[in-house]
Amino acid sequence: MAGDGSDQRALQYEQTLMYGRYTQDLGVYAKEEAARLRESGQRRSVADRSRTLDLLEYEKGRCAKCRICTVRCQKFLISRVGEDWIFLILLGLLMALVSWVVDFCIAICLQAQKWMYGGLDSNVFLQYLAWVTYPVVLITFSAGFTQILAPQAVGSGIPEMKTILRGVVLKEYLTFKTFVAKVIGLTCALGSGMPLGKEGPFVHIASLCAALLSKFMSLFGGIYENESRNIEMLAAACAVGVGCCFAAPIGGVLFSIEVTSTFFAVRNYWRGFFAATFSAFIFRVLAVWNRDEETITALFKTRFRLDFPFDLQELPAFAVIGIASGFGGALFVYLNRLIVQFIRKQKAINKFLMKKRLLYPALVTLLVSTLTFPPGFGQFMAGKLTQKESLVTLLDNRTWAKQGIAEEFDYIGHSQAWKHPQVNVFVTLVLFIVMKFWMSALATTIPVPCGAFMPVFVIGAAFGRLVGESMAAWFPDGIHTDGTIYPIVPGGYAVVGAAALSGAVTHTVSTAVIVFELTGQISHILPVMIAVILANAVAQSLQPSLYDSIIRIKKLPYLPELGWGHHEKYNIRVEDIMVRDVRYITLNCCYRDLHNVLLTGHLKTLALVETAESMILLGSIERAQLQSLLSQQLGRPRRLEYIRERAAAEKKLMSVVSNPGSEDESQRISQEVRFQISTDESSFSPTRPVPQKPLKPALKRSSVVERPTEIPNSPVDNSGIALKNLFCASPDAEGLEDDADLEDDMTIREIAEWEEKQLDEQVNFNNCKIDPAPFQLVERTSLHKTHTIFSLLGLDHAYVTSIGRLIGVVSLKELRKAIEGSVTVKGVKVRPPLASFRDSGTSSSENETTELHKLWDRHKSMSLPREHTPSESDEKSQ
Amino acid sequence: MAGDGSDQRALQYEQTLMYGRYTQDLGVYAKEEAARLRESGQRRSVADRSRTLDLLEYEKGRCAKCRICTVRCQKFLISRVGEDWIFLILLGLLMALVSWVVDFCIAICLQAQKWMYGGLDSNVFLQYLAWVTYPVVLITFSAGFTQILAPQAVGSGIPEMKTILRGVVLKEYLTFKTFVAKVIGLTCALGSGMPLGKEGPFVHIASLCAALLSKFMSLFGGIYENESRNIEMLAAACAVGVGCCFAAPIGGVLFSIEVTSTFFAVRNYWRGFFAATFSAFIFRVLAVWNRDEETITALFKTRFRLDFPFDLQELPAFAVIGIASGFGGALFVYLNRLIVQFIRKQKAINKFLMKKRLLYPALVTLLVSTLTFPPGFGQFMAGKLTQKESLVTLLDNRTWAKQGIAEEFDYIGHSQAWKHPQVNVFVTLVLFIVMKFWMSALATTIPVPCGAFMPVFVIGAAFGRLVGESMAAWFPDGIHTDGTIYPIVPGGYAVVGAAALSGAVTHTVSTAVIVFELTGQISHILPVMIAVILANAVAQSLQPSLYDSIIRIKKLPYLPELGWGHHEKYNIRVEDIMVRDVRYITLNCCYRDLHNVLLTGHLKTLALVETAESMILLGSIERAQLQSLLSQQLGRPRRLEYIRERAAAEKKLMSVVSNPGSEDESQRISQEVRFQISTDESSFSPTRPVPQKPLKPALKRSSVVERPTEIPNSPVDNSGIALKNLFCASPDAEGLEDDADLEDDMTIREIAEWEEKQLDEQVNFNNCKIDPAPFQLVERTSLHKTHTIFSLLGLDHAYVTSIGRLIGVVSLKELRKAIEGSVTVKGVKVRPPLASFRDSGTSSSENETTELHKLWDRHKSMSLPREHTPSESDEKSQ
Repeated sequence: MAGDGSDQRALQYEQTLMYGRYTQDLGVYAKEEAARLRESGQRRSVADRSRTLDLLEYEKGRCAKCRICTVRCQKFLISRVGEDWIFLILLGLLMALVSWVVDFCIAICLQAQKWMYGGLDSNVFLQYLAWVTYPVVLITFSAGFTQILAPQAVGSGIPEMKTILRGVVLKEYLTFKTFVAKVIGLTCALGSGMPLGKEGPFVHIASLCAALLSKFMSLFGGIYENESRNIEMLAAACAVGVGCCFAAPIGGVLFSIEVTSTFFAVRNYWRGFFAATFSAFIFRVLAVWNRDEETITALFKTRFRLDFPFDLQELPAFAVIGIASGFGGALFVYLNRLIVQFIRKQKAINKFLMKKRLLYPALVTLLVSTLTFPPGFGQFMAGKLTQKESLVTLLDNRTWAKQGIAEEFDYIGHSQAWKHPQVNVFVTLVLFIVMKFWMSALATTIPVPCGAFMPVFVIGAAFGRLVGESMAAWFPDGIHTDGTIYPIVPGGYAVVGAAALSGAVTHTVSTAVIVFELTGQISHILPVMIAVILANAVAQSLQPSLYDSIIRIKKLPYLPELGWGHHEKYNIRVEDIMVRDVRYITLNCCYRDLHNVLLTGHLKTLALVETAESMILLGSIERAQLQSLLSQQLGRPRRLEYIRERAAAEKKLMSVVSNPGSEDESQRISQEVRFQISTDESSFSPTRPVPQKPLKPALKRSSVVERPTEIPNSPVDNSGIALKNLFCASPDAEGLEDDADLEDDMTIREIAEWEEKQLDEQVNFNNCKIDPAPFQLVERTSLHKTHTIFSLLGLDHAYVTSIGRLIGVVSLKELRKAIEGSVTVKGVKVRPPLASFRDSGTSSSENETTELHKLWDRHKSMSLPREHTPSESDEKSQ
Repeated sequence: MAGDGSDQRALQYEQTLMYGRYTQDLGVYAKEEAARLRESGQRRSVADRSRTLDLLEYEKGRCAKCRICTVRCQKFLISRVGEDWIFLILLGLLMALVSWVVDFCIAICLQAQKWMYGGLDSNVFLQYLAWVTYPVVLITFSAGFTQILAPQAVGSGIPEMKTILRGVVLKEYLTFKTFVAKVIGLTCALGSGMPLGKEGPFVHIASLCAALLSKFMSLFGGIYENESRNIEMLAAACAVGVGCCFAAPIGGVLFSIEVTSTFFAVRNYWRGFFAATFSAFIFRVLAVWNRDEETITALFKTRFRLDFPFDLQELPAFAVIGIASGFGGALFVYLNRLIVQFIRKQKAINKFLMKKRLLYPALVTLLVSTLTFPPGFGQFMAGKLTQKESLVTLLDNRTWAKQGIAEEFDYIGHSQAWKHPQVNVFVTLVLFIVMKFWMSALATTIPVPCGAFMPVFVIGAAFGRLVGESMAAWFPDGIHTDGTIYPIVPGGYAVVGAAALSGAVTHTVSTAVIVFELTGQISHILPVMIAVILANAVAQSLQPSLYDSIIRIKKLPYLPELGWGHHEKYNIRVEDIMVRDVRYITLNCCYRDLHNVLLTGHLKTLALVETAESMILLGSIERAQLQSLLSQQLGRPRRLEYIRERAAAEKKLMSVVSNPGSEDESQRISQEVRFQISTDESSFSPTRPVPQKPLKPALKRSSVVERPTEIPNSPVDNSGIALKNLFCASPDAEGLEDDADLEDDMTIREIAEWEEKQLDEQVNFNNCKIDPAPFQLVERTSLHKTHTIFSLLGLDHAYVTSIGRLIGVVSLKELRKAIEGSVTVKGVKVRPPLASFRDSGTSSSENETTELHKLWDRHKSMSLPREHTPSESDEKSQ
């Protein structure tokens, strides 16, 4: 653990160097890190165990009774503390507090800005300076703080959580540092008054809370170390995040399910509901205790009439809002991606921004706040209202355009901001929508912790209000014909618009539920549902969701969803997309094969087959396991042992004439040596060899003639030349830590020869961890089913077998390609040239064997690459 | 398909014979049927294909241009019709119509009863007769009609849908007959005014609609034949069922997910929402068009005040409602099960009821309607109100117990029913709750289509009202202290109680959402959520849900959920629960082994391993496949071929002296014969053998001496004696349909000898369908993970392998046992005696091999049972 420190710092530095982290291929990185983390975890648990053993030894002297009692008490406490519901209550409580504190701080920040702006009303220029400087400072601080402390805290967090819940371990995403960076960065970012949201980051913060709480609780022992349990808790945490952000427990659970999961375990349902309800409850109770509210009610309470919320004939208008929101949502996602890609592509801009990484946030903030400056352009777009205030006014149940003339209405409170002496309220609304639209798309690209849900929600509400006001102007007395007059309620349209646009951007239906919980009224349920579904239908057919778009931009390892009309997916088979050229090792292979396989590929796991002829799949082995096998075989300890043995044999050869009886004893010693290298203290000390011109390791077989020409960098560093090709990262440390007292008298040539000999030995898989049941598919499995299985089980790759014989492998990459290929080129099957030929074959068994032989021949004839793979050299350079 | 008719009728008769179908082990039955159905489906699709080929041949003569045009138009139509959304719209429309018509008919039925009761107010006895006879007749008709037409329509349908969505095919559950029986039966049952609900049956009806619609749409071709698509559509249909029943689209989707699924694919989410929204919309629009409503609003609209729905200090009362509802819900489930089990156990009652199957419904109805007779006991429990009316009154926003004295309040409309001159309103409510509680539990055991949701909902509302009225009486001026007086709203308590009790009975959280959508108000969201979660916590720890309880009663094949506190599940491994004594066949086995394996076990699939020594799992083969292999080897055609060959050989032997050159030609013929049995028309006609005393088939090896003592039933039926043991159901038909012109001159002894010889041949697996990648687990897989994988993938069984070697098998049964065992005996690990020994072992490979050998030895030494298994004999007797 301690050894990782410098490593981490280096990585962090490297991360900070890149603008917004967009240039890094996080996928590969995350996978490699996942393997490392898991290993270090194992190492730690071993250390823990030995420590407890020591403690037990120490305590043996104490009185036994007392100890038993303590242990029992401890066990009872643990069994209580270990219950899920305690964890969930703690999580809910914590998150409610965080949410409330963040909201409180944001409110203070915004008030401070208003106060400053209000105090300087004598001088417009000073006023402008105050209005602009304040957000620029806050955003710059937020960006800088996050960059320095934890660059992982940047952005929404939902895409990352989606990836983590898929089973991929993202490094540093769930640490305390990230938590601090996210909370403080978010508070500052939202306090600046920029069009940013707190909902995405809150999902991340809740997950961070859950992970940290889990770590804390695991101090009490118990079940907190179980991996699948942690995933369940993270899923609940996502629900809590949304729930305590909007005080919307049901909507929060549903939204988090829709956004983060592909398959949802219904048995986890109660966890989400329980934690989110508790959290929302505490969040609202805090408001009551703080005298903000009289009792627990909705966050943005509306007061629409209950008896006749809308007329049946208004439904077409609601449908129009839905369809328009669908297009708008797709446009927003597209615009957001376009901005990121534009900045990335323009090399000059990119280079400049990479150097001055705080300049971009500052510039964007300056632009946005200049345009919203109330005495300036802001007067035409209600610029002086904060996000919350504009939402409250937009959901107002009074009609602004009474009698078609906006001016006649008596605006009270914040609604006055929408009134302009020269300009119609419709113009104000249109300007607000258009300006906020691109501002939000731009603002969400700033590298600070921020979400896009709330800005989009407000824009949607404004759009709904616009349609509603138009309807009210068109039908001043309502549409209903018989009896009483029911005027049109533009506030209801705003609710519908908000749900529809946010649903379109996030590709979720549950925004409808969030809207009901936010407003505390469910009377518009059918219009809202219709609009949300229509918006989703339009948006999903045009663009990926905002979160999927970010996943693609950040290149996170994730499996795309199957599209809406996925008929053709039923026709593509695994055999059409699988990689037939599988890297594998056989049960009776020698270390040389192992070495070659490790050199040529860089897959995380390798298939183990019985023999190359039968190709019967026996299991899969992790790359790390094979590397350790190889390092055991070629490592310095083993070589030293060999030297010792050779010396002993020489000794014996000399002494065999004088004392033939000691033969079996020397054998015994050599036997002992084989297993007790560290305790052995033999003191053969031959003269240190003069550094010769070393040979290039034997395994670079392509150029035997080149050998004598190279010069070694250091004479000490000769522990396992062949291994060097595999372990680019610090193999020295390992080599040096064992007994240095034993002198290594072998020349480089001898070492190379010895290695050659070692490599020809057969591999002993006894101490190797083999996964005996890797996931297997059949060639005829459809793409649809493969996708389902991959997303259900969170697989990374699966072997394709035919009656036990390995014939191919499918990894996430192939699957992703196949799905994306067939999504863009609709109806075109993704089939290799051979596929149609394969279909025409009658029986399967013959085809398979011939193909297997082909595969095998290809394998054998393939020339081995001379250098290690690019990905490894990348790692080296880091 | 036509051949199944008599079979089906026989089965139906058999089903009708059993009272309530409770005595039948549906699980085994369903599995066998599933295999049969699938096979027949395949057969049909082959027939379809040949038909289209014929059509193409026929059309060749027509003008090509016209045909191409037609085909294109057709394709376009199909591609349009094939879209999911068309299907979902049709489904929604259909279900909305069905729901509305059913509601309309029920309302008419109930009005008719009231009218009859009202018209006879001169004579109490006549009034009583009318009050009682009407429901008895309706219920008896409903029970009789369902029994005759489709006994599968009885009951709720949710347990069956849960099983079907798990991947099990239940016979006859999704046919048109069942649809008719369910709709008409449900209408009559609910029209009788008994405390029954329509929500469970509507889930079933919607699924029926979806299945029938799917069948209808598949006439247009396209993707409607895909199995996984059908499952997706059924899931959406369940949502539609609930959605159009309560006009609650969101709650419907959530409820159907919670009730029917274990893992939910989020990509199906929109389907449910789309269809349910459309359905609910049409359902409510029908009401508007029918002038029942002015516009689209909630079904049971409430009018609670919005500004101050409840005080923070009222929350403990809501929590009390939740906890009490939890106990109540568990009690309801227990009571319901107790009644069923009591009737089943009491042999005398059971026998009597089996004979007079309409007596039980009539008796129960008589009892219930007698007790609710308004001038009788009904006056103390608002007996004259229908279910709907009582719910409306219970959700009323006025306080009944104003100033603590019930009499002073002016009851208007239906609320008058709760007023009794002598008795307090509290007493009325308590009596209502108690009486309705056992009545509902009893009524839901009647074999008519009915659900229990609505009665429970009403009881919950009454309980909530009771608590609310008590609170109102306790705090006449409300609890809120500062400023304005906010009196307590007992209607809000009723809402909370309804959600809590129905949530407790069904183990769902989404009843909360249903309540909001039913009442059209979401102001009580936090109390409702808290109460529902508490009720769930209590109920889930005491009893299974009502649907799971019915699944257990009916013995449907289903995997129970992991309990709430499932810590111990992380510690149980697959090795502790798996069956080590796996039935398997080897790649080089002979037919005798096949026969033995088929005789001894009755698993649906068998493992195929490489050799008995290596035990490397190659795949799994379905039982039916093996049976057909065996029947090919031992069947009559092969024997006839043998006879032919023998005759040819004899002929050749005779002619070999006269013409030795014809030898290779006769070989050619015999080669042809081997592959062209049906077209061959050789006319060897030896004399028909005189029926001798036959030998018992060779394979009953245990008693060789017994052989000559048995007498055959018919001399004709000698096609494959050994096969008889396997194919108890009509093997005759198969044997007789092929060429009867070839005479069978073999004696029974010869046949037995021939069979013996045939059985010693090695099995040729070439034409056998092998599943090359059956699902595999590792011994160390935890029970938790196994459960997840089983429910995710809908598995029936999984093989346990260790480095490719088969060491055990886990089926649903073992899993169910392990889960239920560890649920009841909490904390006790389900481990065989060997498990602890196994854990102490160091390396895995050695242990495994020794255990494998043990397993193998056990296998070899095991004596084979003499008769076929009981399950097969059961099948025979059907």
